[in-house]
Amino acid sequence: MKKIKLQNTPAIRRMPTYLHKLDLLAAEHEETVSTTKLAEYMNLDPVIVKKDFELTNVKGQPGVGYQTADLIEGIRRFLRWDQLCSATLVGVGALGSAILGFTEFQEFGMKITSVFDSNPDKTGTYVHGHEVLAADRMEEILKQDPPRIAVLCVPTSCSQEVAEKVVHLGIKAIWNFGNVSLSLPDDVIVQREVLAGGFAVLSSKLVLRDEGENSDQ
Amino acid sequence: MKKIKLQNTPAIRRMPTYLHKLDLLAAEHEETVSTTKLAEYMNLDPVIVKKDFELTNVKGQPGVGYQTADLIEGIRRFLRWDQLCSATLVGVGALGSAILGFTEFQEFGMKITSVFDSNPDKTGTYVHGHEVLAADRMEEILKQDPPRIAVLCVPTSCSQEVAEKVVHLGIKAIWNFGNVSLSLPDDVIVQREVLAGGFAVLSSKLVLRDEGENSDQ
Repeated sequence: MKKIKLQNTPAIRRMPTYLHKLDLLAAEHEETVSTTKLAEYMNLDPVIVKKDFELTNVKGQPGVGYQTADLIEGIRRFLRWDQLCSATLVGVGALGSAILGFTEFQEFGMKITSVFDSNPDKTGTYVHGHEVLAADRMEEILKQDPPRIAVLCVPTSCSQEVAEKVVHLGIKAIWNFGNVSLSLPDDVIVQREVLAGGFAVLSSKLVLRDEGENSDQ
Repeated sequence: MKKIKLQNTPAIRRMPTYLHKLDLLAAEHEETVSTTKLAEYMNLDPVIVKKDFELTNVKGQPGVGYQTADLIEGIRRFLRWDQLCSATLVGVGALGSAILGFTEFQEFGMKITSVFDSNPDKTGTYVHGHEVLAADRMEEILKQDPPRIAVLCVPTSCSQEVAEKVVHLGIKAIWNFGNVSLSLPDDVIVQREVLAGGFAVLSSKLVLRDEGENSDQ
């Protein structure tokens, strides 16, 4: 199988933010919403917002806009967030615990079915309602019926080793929070999530602004 | 002042991952590194890696590659991570605590000088060495000498209000972890970090793969 190459990544990244706004509008009984209104909210050109929603196949009506409920349903269907996606989470440090605590991931269909950590002090404790299991029980628990994804919140130095382990147990998609590019078979989907990447973008914007201010003088 | 529009965002997001790998190579006394090796590591085309490094103005030598130390210094200089960037962090929930615990942000120049939370039970407690201050002391503490950035880890429903407050106190750049598009003056830099955005990308890759597998049958 060939490697998955995703188009429209920025648009897809925006979907949860649209969804949050649309949920608020629906709660306020706003049955329709215009492209202009959403574009203003997102600080984007209306053309971009229109293109984003084309991905969902939901059609707006000229002069009326989109039906709020249709758009919510369309985005959820497009991302398959209308179906459950089983997941195991490995590494219950500060970030792993934070992810276990985000109730919005459940709304988006992620169902965490097991949680592992290699620290024996954590075994048997509960984090946001999830029992922490000993890492050496991964094979016993995951191999029979591997979940769809593994969320790796282990230290970066362990990411490759743990990734290989879960792939060996049959998991074919990894959400990797380690600051490392994993080397895995081509049929395994990997999504790397590096918080420092966001800080790099913010830092670059600061540099650009400072340079702009200096050149204005 | 005009809004900052950043080019090359994907390249900039990759910088911390290059940096981590280069630090490892430097620790192993690998004085030079080839584009091919880094491209293989990153699962990228070598042409893209070359273009990424052009941003840093560090030149490689044909047949030799880059000097590891030059590249590390070049990336840090490009992002201004060779200088300190003062920050206040607001909202010490699970995610805020996790960010306070990431030692790598310090290596990248972020210096958290104050931490606030509106929950009185947290006031005076220490999280990863930082004293949590009462949110109603923000004006007193920040206004005199506002830090360069504010890291907002408050619940999404409070993000806009807290953002307006820190901007009013003189902060001109916000790293926003709320799932909301902030409405702020144009001269304020905002970097939105939505973890669910990464899950949306992963979900879309799963959809693509499932469709590919079905069409193969």
